[in-house]
Amino acid sequence: MSTKTQHSKRQPGVRTKLFVADETIGVGKINLLAMVGEVGSISKAARQMNMSYRRAKFLLDSMQTGFESPLLHSQRGGTEQGGAQLTRLGEELIKRYKAHAVRVEEHSTEILAWMESVQALASVRKEDL
Amino acid sequence: MSTKTQHSKRQPGVRTKLFVADETIGVGKINLLAMVGEVGSISKAARQMNMSYRRAKFLLDSMQTGFESPLLHSQRGGTEQGGAQLTRLGEELIKRYKAHAVRVEEHSTEILAWMESVQALASVRKEDL
Repeated sequence: MSTKTQHSKRQPGVRTKLFVADETIGVGKINLLAMVGEVGSISKAARQMNMSYRRAKFLLDSMQTGFESPLLHSQRGGTEQGGAQLTRLGEELIKRYKAHAVRVEEHSTEILAWMESVQALASVRKEDL
Repeated sequence: MSTKTQHSKRQPGVRTKLFVADETIGVGKINLLAMVGEVGSISKAARQMNMSYRRAKFLLDSMQTGFESPLLHSQRGGTEQGGAQLTRLGEELIKRYKAHAVRVEEHSTEILAWMESVQALASVRKEDL
């Protein structure tokens, strides 16, 4: 936890969510999928992201329901917990989501500047109550 | 409920969420605020949107915490339930959010087309289980 200046404003922000089939895909699921790709296993990725294996598995499974083909391949077996690798589709999803998020961010400067000018100043006070 | 064609795909979609102070503002809250402005009362707006007055009031109050000045003015008193009117800030928020959502939509054609090409076809089947 970092110490906060009493009068600091948080910067207003913007996020983009995608809807595909019955699924919702936002930055949280994308970051998890990317972490799996990075560390090569669901359980390691879960640990890195401070969530349970169950939760990570649930999020990845629910993300998968939006797509016709697999986002990742798991290898089970051996004494180690099975590894997991992104498929080309999984990698493409991450790349495209990130590019899209950057584009949204680029087109958000106007509303973010306006929101900064009208936002509540007292967000820090709440935590002191 | 409308009948669905078995093989119909849902169109992939995109939504944009704003973060201001500790608050999150998405299309649901914006539509509620706009409805209050249209019908001139929180309770009527709640009814129109099929939610309880409590729920509507909670959403509006939580949206308000993001802003330094009021988004709407309520008039209480009389025999009728008090009316509510948007302030200039409330109106500007709606206008700016909608313009921003259109801009995001305009820059989403590429990822939406891609998602349509890779999405699961079976979203209808789920409901038949």
